[in-house]
Amino acid sequence: MNKGMQKYLDKAEVLIEALPYIQRFNRKIIVVKYGGSAMVDEDLKEQVIKDVTLLKLVGFKPIIVHGGGKEISRWVGKVGMEPEFVNGLRVTDEATMELAEMVLGKVNKSLVQLVESLGVRAIGISGKDGGLLTVDKKLADGEDIGFVGEIKKVNADILYDLLEKDFLPIICPVGLDDSFNTYNINADDAACAIARAMRAEKLAFLTDIEGVYKDPHDPETLISELKVSEARNLMNEGYIGGGMLPKLHNCIDAIEHGVSRVHILDGRIPHCLLLEIFTNRGIGTAILNDSEERYFYGE
Amino acid sequence: MNKGMQKYLDKAEVLIEALPYIQRFNRKIIVVKYGGSAMVDEDLKEQVIKDVTLLKLVGFKPIIVHGGGKEISRWVGKVGMEPEFVNGLRVTDEATMELAEMVLGKVNKSLVQLVESLGVRAIGISGKDGGLLTVDKKLADGEDIGFVGEIKKVNADILYDLLEKDFLPIICPVGLDDSFNTYNINADDAACAIARAMRAEKLAFLTDIEGVYKDPHDPETLISELKVSEARNLMNEGYIGGGMLPKLHNCIDAIEHGVSRVHILDGRIPHCLLLEIFTNRGIGTAILNDSEERYFYGE
Amino acid sequence: MNKGMQKYLDKAEVLIEALPYIQRFNRKIIVVKYGGSAMVDEDLKEQVIKDVTLLKLVGFKPIIVHGGGKEISRWVGKVGMEPEFVNGLRVTDEATMELAEMVLGKVNKSLVQLVESLGVRAIGISGKDGGLLTVDKKLADGEDIGFVGEIKKVNADILYDLLEKDFLPIICPVGLDDSFNTYNINADDAACAIARAMRAEKLAFLTDIEGVYKDPHDPETLISELKVSEARNLMNEGYIGGGMLPKLHNCIDAIEHGVSRVHILDGRIPHCLLLEIFTNRGIGTAILNDSEERYFYGE
Amino acid sequence: MNKGMQKYLDKAEVLIEALPYIQRFNRKIIVVKYGGSAMVDEDLKEQVIKDVTLLKLVGFKPIIVHGGGKEISRWVGKVGMEPEFVNGLRVTDEATMELAEMVLGKVNKSLVQLVESLGVRAIGISGKDGGLLTVDKKLADGEDIGFVGEIKKVNADILYDLLEKDFLPIICPVGLDDSFNTYNINADDAACAIARAMRAEKLAFLTDIEGVYKDPHDPETLISELKVSEARNLMNEGYIGGGMLPKLHNCIDAIEHGVSRVHILDGRIPHCLLLEIFTNRGIGTAILNDSEERYFYGE
Amino acid sequence: MNKGMQKYLDKAEVLIEALPYIQRFNRKIIVVKYGGSAMVDEDLKEQVIKDVTLLKLVGFKPIIVHGGGKEISRWVGKVGMEPEFVNGLRVTDEATMELAEMVLGKVNKSLVQLVESLGVRAIGISGKDGGLLTVDKKLADGEDIGFVGEIKKVNADILYDLLEKDFLPIICPVGLDDSFNTYNINADDAACAIARAMRAEKLAFLTDIEGVYKDPHDPETLISELKVSEARNLMNEGYIGGGMLPKLHNCIDAIEHGVSRVHILDGRIPHCLLLEIFTNRGIGTAILNDSEERYFYGE
Amino acid sequence: MNKGMQKYLDKAEVLIEALPYIQRFNRKIIVVKYGGSAMVDEDLKEQVIKDVTLLKLVGFKPIIVHGGGKEISRWVGKVGMEPEFVNGLRVTDEATMELAEMVLGKVNKSLVQLVESLGVRAIGISGKDGGLLTVDKKLADGEDIGFVGEIKKVNADILYDLLEKDFLPIICPVGLDDSFNTYNINADDAACAIARAMRAEKLAFLTDIEGVYKDPHDPETLISELKVSEARNLMNEGYIGGGMLPKLHNCIDAIEHGVSRVHILDGRIPHCLLLEIFTNRGIGTAILNDSEERYFYGE
Repeated sequence: MNKGMQKYLDKAEVLIEALPYIQRFNRKIIVVKYGGSAMVDEDLKEQVIKDVTLLKLVGFKPIIVHGGGKEISRWVGKVGMEPEFVNGLRVTDEATMELAEMVLGKVNKSLVQLVESLGVRAIGISGKDGGLLTVDKKLADGEDIGFVGEIKKVNADILYDLLEKDFLPIICPVGLDDSFNTYNINADDAACAIARAMRAEKLAFLTDIEGVYKDPHDPETLISELKVSEARNLMNEGYIGGGMLPKLHNCIDAIEHGVSRVHILDGRIPHCLLLEIFTNRGIGTAILNDSEERYFYGE
Repeated sequence: MNKGMQKYLDKAEVLIEALPYIQRFNRKIIVVKYGGSAMVDEDLKEQVIKDVTLLKLVGFKPIIVHGGGKEISRWVGKVGMEPEFVNGLRVTDEATMELAEMVLGKVNKSLVQLVESLGVRAIGISGKDGGLLTVDKKLADGEDIGFVGEIKKVNADILYDLLEKDFLPIICPVGLDDSFNTYNINADDAACAIARAMRAEKLAFLTDIEGVYKDPHDPETLISELKVSEARNLMNEGYIGGGMLPKLHNCIDAIEHGVSRVHILDGRIPHCLLLEIFTNRGIGTAILNDSEERYFYGE
Repeated sequence: MNKGMQKYLDKAEVLIEALPYIQRFNRKIIVVKYGGSAMVDEDLKEQVIKDVTLLKLVGFKPIIVHGGGKEISRWVGKVGMEPEFVNGLRVTDEATMELAEMVLGKVNKSLVQLVESLGVRAIGISGKDGGLLTVDKKLADGEDIGFVGEIKKVNADILYDLLEKDFLPIICPVGLDDSFNTYNINADDAACAIARAMRAEKLAFLTDIEGVYKDPHDPETLISELKVSEARNLMNEGYIGGGMLPKLHNCIDAIEHGVSRVHILDGRIPHCLLLEIFTNRGIGTAILNDSEERYFYGE
Repeated sequence: MNKGMQKYLDKAEVLIEALPYIQRFNRKIIVVKYGGSAMVDEDLKEQVIKDVTLLKLVGFKPIIVHGGGKEISRWVGKVGMEPEFVNGLRVTDEATMELAEMVLGKVNKSLVQLVESLGVRAIGISGKDGGLLTVDKKLADGEDIGFVGEIKKVNADILYDLLEKDFLPIICPVGLDDSFNTYNINADDAACAIARAMRAEKLAFLTDIEGVYKDPHDPETLISELKVSEARNLMNEGYIGGGMLPKLHNCIDAIEHGVSRVHILDGRIPHCLLLEIFTNRGIGTAILNDSEERYFYGE
Repeated sequence: MNKGMQKYLDKAEVLIEALPYIQRFNRKIIVVKYGGSAMVDEDLKEQVIKDVTLLKLVGFKPIIVHGGGKEISRWVGKVGMEPEFVNGLRVTDEATMELAEMVLGKVNKSLVQLVESLGVRAIGISGKDGGLLTVDKKLADGEDIGFVGEIKKVNADILYDLLEKDFLPIICPVGLDDSFNTYNINADDAACAIARAMRAEKLAFLTDIEGVYKDPHDPETLISELKVSEARNLMNEGYIGGGMLPKLHNCIDAIEHGVSRVHILDGRIPHCLLLEIFTNRGIGTAILNDSEERYFYGE
Repeated sequence: MNKGMQKYLDKAEVLIEALPYIQRFNRKIIVVKYGGSAMVDEDLKEQVIKDVTLLKLVGFKPIIVHGGGKEISRWVGKVGMEPEFVNGLRVTDEATMELAEMVLGKVNKSLVQLVESLGVRAIGISGKDGGLLTVDKKLADGEDIGFVGEIKKVNADILYDLLEKDFLPIICPVGLDDSFNTYNINADDAACAIARAMRAEKLAFLTDIEGVYKDPHDPETLISELKVSEARNLMNEGYIGGGMLPKLHNCIDAIEHGVSRVHILDGRIPHCLLLEIFTNRGIGTAILNDSEERYFYGE
């Protein structure tokens, strides 16, 4: 057999290897929190969207939750708005909220556009549509920092209805309180709440780190699998700090409310989502129940 | 019977009078082009949304198509963008398009918010979602004026699916061309194309004029009912000018593609939609087929 | 604005005010026991039917249960039948039952006719159709008074099937015993049993009195709202007498089996049903659970 | 094998012989015009209803259309009404119509009762329910003879909906004109119009004669099978007279509008319906298209 | 009435007598274990299949489970295979299993063919299709006797799906173990497991005996009805021997897991299935719960 | 990036490359004629089944039609049957047909087994089940060669029903004539008739040749794409001979009855199905309409 042919056979083998993974996640809901570098770099952006679109096409039910990333800051500057602070915390006043919603809406439709260009039915909504996300005001150490919301209710029916009509839902984290005021929501929190409400099979966070480290200064201490109890210990013992702390809290919360597995992935690695789902190579850190076994399909 | 009681009986009578109208439009699609003053004045805004919400609740299937009105201009100024012109026509360059989409998105979600606050399921989408609106570049007298689109395809399935799931769709007129670039679309054109594609029962334009006049300088010449052939004559004889000309073209186009009736309503009159639909008082100008009779349900 | 216009705006306002009520009862089942003067006076008859038809059109699921009222007595006379009595109680012998069924059937179809003339799909059935009502013989103080039945089973599926096919069911209170003999049923009992079996949102009795009085001789003592425990007290203390006693028993029975609210309305007031449902003016007496709050939607 | 056993084996054989017939009419609509002696004699009545119930249970979709027969005349006498005549034709004035509707309603429910007692879901309706039958006034030689209607529209959806919900519909021939007045309809006409509107497989008239004769005075001339063209010839040549003439017109009309076969059966023969459908013994006269072959399943 | 006519009337009477039985088993699942002489004699074969087809056509949901009977032995001889034995038990080695599956497949399709020739939709499957039957290896007194399986899981969804699509499923008792090896299954066991999994109304074994005897040597001791506790006693007291022992175990197992009634029928009696179901003549032995009454519909 | 990682990224790329192909064939029916070496070699067999299973899992609707290949000849020998010939053609007498059906049944279930072991719902049927394939006797040059059938009717509903219930149908080419006798059918003919009846998107023949050659003796003359008119010319000019002639006739027949594309694939190449569908490398010969363009998705 000539070499050109061999190349194709190798490709066929890769597809065949995907069989058990495709089967395992057939019709399962996978919530992807999309953010960080993967939103800024155009190549990474395209790769992430292609990954999610592939998941949709082979029979999974992915849902994207995205943030606005650096784009909001860029526009705050562009418009010449002056940030306000309370006790050192940035305040989301009405004008900031208005601008943030505009930027998030723009990002939302740009993702819709990408998915549609790949031939898959996307719909971009915010937590306002169909009353998807209802919030309470979130205080920072007891201080009012404006229109920052804490999710108190997810109207999961909206998403079930859209999935039933074969849409790939793309959600920006804006919601309403009981008086129908607009609030900004942390995208990690939104992804976690939605995964919980839909009892998703997986919740994957695309981040700008490789995963959870025992010692953040030593790349050799990357943890590829973390049971909930181990995660709690790490936090209690002070190993976890910075932005990872609330993220881990979210992970544990999701696991404890029916999500089977949460992944902290390095969004800077191309196709990190596919690698995690379709190969036995662990990417980043997987958080799982104490009682669960890691699943392998042989190497 | 005392006077307090009489007030209530009068109310009951009004509801009873609505019976034949509710019946006539049960499960019928009504496309409302929402724009002009009714988008600026907060009271009018609330009234329009209440009207449409009522239509939804009593069994109609309304769809809102909105423009961005003066809000886009306001933001162009705020951001400090310099408008560009070709042959005296304003050009929609990439930056303008980006800003316009952001503003339209904001307006879109504010309408969603209002409908949701009235307890009805709304979903705000643009022509990008589900590939609803596909466009070609629109030239102005042969000149390229940037990202201004002419609709060439409406994916009506998207709206049928959302109506089936009991959403009130609210649409902002942005679409994609075959290469998935973003284009601005005239909201009147979008409303007309959607009404055609769904063979709506009614298409109503909320405008800032009372209707079509034979002599625009003489308010006494307001035409309350216009057959298609009469409309054509008026246009040919030069009676119609300005912004009314393309609007009338849209009206005729809609009628000729299966929409039963098109209305040019004065959006400055509170509840003009309800008045048109639920009473025998003609508001504005109705355009209809030459072969049709105006329907009345008695005084 | 001229005065003619104001009249129409007022009408629009009334419709808008109905919004929250329409929402609250959307797809809810409302059983209306129709009887008394409202069945004799042609104007009242038309108003009641218009009210119920409107409820149907705006999305509720009304069911009418009617009696035969004075029409049965009229025909007994016409045919020259001699009433028979046992211990002073009128006996429903076979001949009387046959005639009663004929008269009830006639009344039933005349209501169907009225609803159909308003453009709504009605179906007139008796408790025989689909085995809707199965009865046991009802004794009066241990005496056999003929074919008078006590409901022991409601086949609710029949009504769910008809509602699903968008019919407005109109039911006359005739049923079968286990040996398939025909029995007359008290219309109040039938309405109550049906409301219970379908866990209706509301059960409304159209009567010829204003409601429940603490002192029947003093119109000022009309009770507009009665908790179940209060109703029990009134009965125990002997305040309630005559035909109201079994009616109140029915009301309490319905409430205790899942009906949210029972109303004793004055059928002589035009549109009393609409007034009760669409305005905050209490008409007649509402019976409700001890734990419930009366709902208001502002003045 | 003993004799007792043989009896059972013979029974099994009969059931097995029914196989091809059950198959042929599976899910087919069969309209039965029920009238004549079979409505008066209690034994025959029970047999007819058992036959139709069996057809329902083995998978057919029978619909019964019945008249009021001699019962109406009996009640006219009982009530002491004076018949009125115009040009020798009996007039159905308002009082007669009212009484006829009552009697037909009673008969209707008595049939419902019988079917229900056999464990099958029946629903008794008139042409008023759901607007099933719309009529025009029928003139007799240009003379107004009161509320006698000619069917101009059958709302077949009503029956499809009831069949879908597994009801056996039992219909009495009363309808409404466009102004919602009540009219009596000839039961043969009603059965024929309904069979046409539903493109029934079969339409069977239960009559008091053996079938169509070439010479009514010679029982040997009974015609067991009549092509449409032959029927026309017989009529043109004056062989057919009396009540058979309109009946044959109805038969031809039904055949020409899609009913596969019409049968004139002798309702005085017990189980004539079953015999016609489940055996190869021709009962009465079958009317069929010129192009069709009579179907047999062997002896 | 002449004698020819009487013959037909008698037939009609037989059909009418079937009414209550048809009603009772409407849409009920009936599992028929088909084997013994009834599979060898061509006449009996045709009668059994006609019986089952009739059950299907009149609205029951029969499922056939068959063995291969003497046909397997015939082919083992034909191919010249040498049977192997372990401890006196015949071993199903791979070659035997291959041949057995081929023969069972042939028998399966011949039954499909018969049912199809009667105009009913049949589908012939084995326990492999859709993973219907999963087995463990069955040991005989601790000895490995080859590919003989014991059912550990029935995938009832497969049969529900086929019944929903109106197929009459015909099943041959071959299954797979967890490693997807092929196993032979005792047909009685398969029928019992399937009846349990589907909570069948009836499970009928066609055998070559008249039923269960108290004294196998005395035909007068045939037991027509056996409560579960009585069956247990008979077994404990040693009255039951040979092939009847495991069959009775199966019967009791089925009854205790939700099957309403199990019948041991004499497949050598023509139409024994119809006789059991459609007449009040008891055929063979019925096994039922201690708490149940035998049902009769009069003589 | 280390080399281990690169391997995984390459795999992800292959999956991503499959995107447009997965999309193109989503929910499309693909009929695979499975035969030749790919049925004999166990490795190839597993590869083919994995390919088809993957097609099922990523959303296509594959249907397998298989022959019995050399297995039938092997069993004819094993049983010691003497082949009979008419004019040099092998005759399928009753005994041969019986054996052939048994062998085909065995092959059928072995394929079911393989698919089930990959976790996909398979169902193995023959043309007898549900009356899928009805045949006439096929004569060879006017001579009767026994039970060899020519398909005259495909009951496509059977397959639609099984696809709707998510089965992967595996079909062996045996059918019934109008008298319900069993016939053998050429597997190529069966695959072609089924593809036609279901208007399949693709029909793929797995063969033991590389494709169609202009000069069978010169491997350089392999034709990768053949328009229908070109195929006709090749046949007319005598370039095509042997077994390829009827196959090409089948191909053309399929194309002309609505199948979009037919492929003659070399079943000896591992994963030839995946290679054809998921890569732009043409495998074997594609036959297509004159008016169609070959589709490419870039290199």
